[in-house]
Amino acid sequence: MTNLRLGQALTTSQVKGIAFPRDASKVEIIMAQVAHARDTTLPDELVDLARAVIEANKKLGRRIAVAESCTGGLVSAALTEIPGSSSVFEAGFVTYSNAQKMALLGVSEDVLDTFGAVSIATAWAMAQGALKRSGADVAVSITGIAGPDGGSEMKPVGTVVFARAEQDDDTENVVADLRRFEDRGRGAVRLQAALCALELLLPESLGEE
Amino acid sequence: MTNLRLGQALTTSQVKGIAFPRDASKVEIIMAQVAHARDTTLPDELVDLARAVIEANKKLGRRIAVAESCTGGLVSAALTEIPGSSSVFEAGFVTYSNAQKMALLGVSEDVLDTFGAVSIATAWAMAQGALKRSGADVAVSITGIAGPDGGSEMKPVGTVVFARAEQDDDTENVVADLRRFEDRGRGAVRLQAALCALELLLPESLGEE
Repeated sequence: MTNLRLGQALTTSQVKGIAFPRDASKVEIIMAQVAHARDTTLPDELVDLARAVIEANKKLGRRIAVAESCTGGLVSAALTEIPGSSSVFEAGFVTYSNAQKMALLGVSEDVLDTFGAVSIATAWAMAQGALKRSGADVAVSITGIAGPDGGSEMKPVGTVVFARAEQDDDTENVVADLRRFEDRGRGAVRLQAALCALELLLPESLGEE
Repeated sequence: MTNLRLGQALTTSQVKGIAFPRDASKVEIIMAQVAHARDTTLPDELVDLARAVIEANKKLGRRIAVAESCTGGLVSAALTEIPGSSSVFEAGFVTYSNAQKMALLGVSEDVLDTFGAVSIATAWAMAQGALKRSGADVAVSITGIAGPDGGSEMKPVGTVVFARAEQDDDTENVVADLRRFEDRGRGAVRLQAALCALELLLPESLGEE
């Protein structure tokens, strides 16, 4: 277990060292934003929203879980970037394949075969599975097509489905939605999907459906 | 499910639009690197190493799983940022609490009580659990203290333990290590830990112990 490239991470300090004068040009403003983003590993808007989610749920004593397919851990990573998130974040499941959606989240093969991995039915089953298996108070799921491959006429790249499940909630009351993000690249689709998922974890968004 | 802040993600295009002339100053070089990083959501060094891990394992037909505590999904997010990662990435478990390490990965309470969550024993049990529950060929675990709180004299902030488990491997052959990263902030500790975990998933690192 030698040759671990620990030094790679230290390049962040280079970026941090840049001054940010009062009469900052546009370039310098962007760089200062970026410096902050690099310091927290993830983009500012993601970290800011994750912080709001952690703080709002902490006030309610509500614990959260996330089941991620196309975002692949990005929502969990954003939430756990916040100091003290352990009092709110319960568990994250990254289930990329259908096999893992079944094994880790208990999504039925029937649902996957009938509706497909990117569907309201699958998203709902993923959220329910994350809720049950983690014991969290609320769970959000994300499943979609981040690209560049995998798109179809019916479900182009940028198609992402979200669902939210809550303890003691009527299971007939499905909170789920399908969004079509503009395909600005895999990173951008994943970022937009992660932001959407975080919004769903804000208590304020409850009952907006 | 209204008021989702989708527009937030579009700021990436601002950064991308910046020219990168041949006689680029240091500032412009940094910005170009950053533009790429933002385009892929995660820092360049993390994405580059994740790409190497995906490509190397794809060649071997080896499927991987990750069990993350202090990195909280960052390793999974990096791996799934790579197009085509679905043929290599099997599953990710984000188990922040002891309860989830037990429930999702089968880590025994005895191990957690005796050695603590940040220990070789726990890391090893996490990697074994991720391997068994996902059916992947190789699994890596990360458990540590990212800070700012949670550190102690024996295990200061920056202490991170890694383990790697492989199918058909002799379970007596524990591949695990404890590292002490300099505490340059929570984001930096997590980034360094994620880079270390990715290194462990490179086939070339096999047998270096």
